[in-house]
Amino acid sequence: MKKHLALLLILFASSAQAAKTVDIVIRGGTVLTMAGPDIPNGGVAIDKGKIIAVGDVRAYHGRTTIDATGDAVLPGFINTHTHAAMVLFRGIADDRALMDWLTHYIFPAEAKNVTPDFVKWGTRLAAAEMIGSGTTTFADMYYFEDEVAQETKRAGLRGILGETLIDFPAPDNKTWGAAVDYIRKFVKKWQGDSLITPALAPHAPYTVSREHLIETRKLADELRAPILIHVSETRDELNQISEKQGGLTPGLYLATIGFLGHDVLAAHCVWLTAEEIRLFAEKGVGVAHCPQSNMMLASGIAPVVEMRKGGVNVGLGTDGAASNDDLDMIQEMGTAARLQKISNRDPQALSARDVLEMATIGGARALGMDKSIGSLEPGKLADVIVISLKQPRTQPVYSVESAIVYAASGTSVVTTICNGRILMRDGKVLTVDVPAAIAKAKQYRAQVLRSLHQD
Amino acid sequence: MKKHLALLLILFASSAQAAKTVDIVIRGGTVLTMAGPDIPNGGVAIDKGKIIAVGDVRAYHGRTTIDATGDAVLPGFINTHTHAAMVLFRGIADDRALMDWLTHYIFPAEAKNVTPDFVKWGTRLAAAEMIGSGTTTFADMYYFEDEVAQETKRAGLRGILGETLIDFPAPDNKTWGAAVDYIRKFVKKWQGDSLITPALAPHAPYTVSREHLIETRKLADELRAPILIHVSETRDELNQISEKQGGLTPGLYLATIGFLGHDVLAAHCVWLTAEEIRLFAEKGVGVAHCPQSNMMLASGIAPVVEMRKGGVNVGLGTDGAASNDDLDMIQEMGTAARLQKISNRDPQALSARDVLEMATIGGARALGMDKSIGSLEPGKLADVIVISLKQPRTQPVYSVESAIVYAASGTSVVTTICNGRILMRDGKVLTVDVPAAIAKAKQYRAQVLRSLHQD
Repeated sequence: MKKHLALLLILFASSAQAAKTVDIVIRGGTVLTMAGPDIPNGGVAIDKGKIIAVGDVRAYHGRTTIDATGDAVLPGFINTHTHAAMVLFRGIADDRALMDWLTHYIFPAEAKNVTPDFVKWGTRLAAAEMIGSGTTTFADMYYFEDEVAQETKRAGLRGILGETLIDFPAPDNKTWGAAVDYIRKFVKKWQGDSLITPALAPHAPYTVSREHLIETRKLADELRAPILIHVSETRDELNQISEKQGGLTPGLYLATIGFLGHDVLAAHCVWLTAEEIRLFAEKGVGVAHCPQSNMMLASGIAPVVEMRKGGVNVGLGTDGAASNDDLDMIQEMGTAARLQKISNRDPQALSARDVLEMATIGGARALGMDKSIGSLEPGKLADVIVISLKQPRTQPVYSVESAIVYAASGTSVVTTICNGRILMRDGKVLTVDVPAAIAKAKQYRAQVLRSLHQD
Repeated sequence: MKKHLALLLILFASSAQAAKTVDIVIRGGTVLTMAGPDIPNGGVAIDKGKIIAVGDVRAYHGRTTIDATGDAVLPGFINTHTHAAMVLFRGIADDRALMDWLTHYIFPAEAKNVTPDFVKWGTRLAAAEMIGSGTTTFADMYYFEDEVAQETKRAGLRGILGETLIDFPAPDNKTWGAAVDYIRKFVKKWQGDSLITPALAPHAPYTVSREHLIETRKLADELRAPILIHVSETRDELNQISEKQGGLTPGLYLATIGFLGHDVLAAHCVWLTAEEIRLFAEKGVGVAHCPQSNMMLASGIAPVVEMRKGGVNVGLGTDGAASNDDLDMIQEMGTAARLQKISNRDPQALSARDVLEMATIGGARALGMDKSIGSLEPGKLADVIVISLKQPRTQPVYSVESAIVYAASGTSVVTTICNGRILMRDGKVLTVDVPAAIAKAKQYRAQVLRSLHQD
């Protein structure tokens, strides 16, 4: 008996010796690597910001150990289209027609309130919400994007941050020239950062002139920075572009001026034609599908099934909170799947697995970042989340994919890790002072309401 | 100075004397009575299972006081269509075509597994989920409905519980005659109960013969029990009924056999015609709209705007968890509003306020229970919930309706009161042993999977 005990101790000691100590080990969960089949009772080992092992992690000892028993372990969600700071306008003008919404609420509210401080606090609150619901990377288009970058970095999130270019005075840059100057500085300041990818965000083909779109394309080439743009969101846009550009649809118009490329992420693409789908696939243009915003504003239903079949890289986005009204990627997945099922009259049109791909590796592909993020594979950056399936609403679990997409909600996410740093643990956001962000949001709400009643 | 103090003390003493002690006082929230405008910084006083004051409740002292500062106070949600015990099949066969789903998964799984014990534990888990997400009343159609009634009562929920009648052997009653006998006993046992309304649930016009539908109608009249039935869910049903019943649509067919009445709640009604809408309004037939299930199974989009305009009482339902996959009425509201906006190409088609009405007083009207539940008014039964708006995802609050419908989720509900009894407080479900229900759900999952692999 004693001999056996001694042997066991030796075995234990040698196995402990063999265990490599790393920063974080997640154990015991169902691992959805998004790069192959799910791994039951598996884990992820993380060190120095990178994933070093996936699946069997018994050989690793973590300075921090996260028990994911009964939970799902996934790559962090990639929100491919948002305007983070607009959380401060959340619900300000819902249930209104698009032009009423834009011209009577959003544009005046922005003109009167959007300052560096507004963007700072709005982004901070948005960061808390994104971390809380498992987003680790987001593509943003807004104003004062340098503030967005600072807040993103501070919260520990990964951001592809596009400073807006638009043909009328913006809250930050009153002229095109000023915006271009801002972008040059902004891109040079942040390029090479471990978390921030500075980008150019010409607003849309109908709000930026042909000359300025061509200038933007050249600037992006010169600065080697990606482009974020709204494309074909509404039928009005389609008609407007067609009238002005000799019958061309927005995507074709962009193609004729040499704007499209693998570094372009086009948001919405609701009205994309078959010809444009072929073109986007050929040019490697990524698409950010935003179903909840498109439903909310009654913009239309994007041809997601056709785009995916056609080889376009389609990611998922929430859009800003003023037309969603949250930044919850889990709910966005559920809506995306259900909407394609009903619009295609086919319950198999878009599955739970499909939308999970769109929210992770698909988004990474759309952003041209799939070599570094979007799946759990050794060597990739450590953007990892844990989703609890222990609540009544997700039990029992016949399919982990179904449980996440159709039954969980953003609040089911319990742990969020980005770039190897734990941003949320056991449901507690660690890198944002949430009460302070909410207090400031309430102040801004009062200011915004006052500003809308002045004239 | 002393004289002033004495006066103050007298005033304080008299106001304290004047305060009436009641069971529960909720204070400091935004009260959505659903019977008039919202009341900021208001409350609800509850005594002996009833609401005795709404709005200014300073005259009441509660044996239990609930602080709802910064939160919303609403009537409990009314889920007008579900199959509660089917939570034990949650996600078992998603992303599949309806007939494959029914014939290869749901029917065999039910035939092999649905016993009184299965229904008991399934309903228990569903009760935990419903309480957790603010549902206080649900309309159920399933088998062994006496078990459902016992569990509903035990959990403290209000249920309109319909025992299924169907023209093939059911898990509980193998013959029509046995089912009718069961219903007679079931109705007599529960009629008059403070929480349970026993009901008859003929499955659908295509699964119950004309003779049996007529017999059901007579039985309902005799027993004075309401009827729950699926109507016009899919285009297949439409075609089937039309072929068999001389070109009639399901609603018209039911009308011609004298089946319709104010005591009938018709679930789905996806394919209702203008003529049927007029008829349902005239006869007072209630409708349970189930958008997430209809999207999931690609059944179609119900004409909700037309039904509401036509004067039909439309409630909201989740349907069973096998086609949703949760019982979250907050998500169901968001989906209902967004789906009507997009299908009507009108962002004003169905507002946050509209779906809140559907989920509360509208559901009560559809069930013919609007005199006792569905709004917060003195004299009504005390079914009240508190929704926290303090999380980042719901801040800041420009519109309480928007915050609840478009940004909150079922997990935002913190307090659930039904019939004056607190079923959940501070997010903790008090009347269901949740870990035990989940443990049993896992056992049943294993059994169900084994049963499907046998043949």
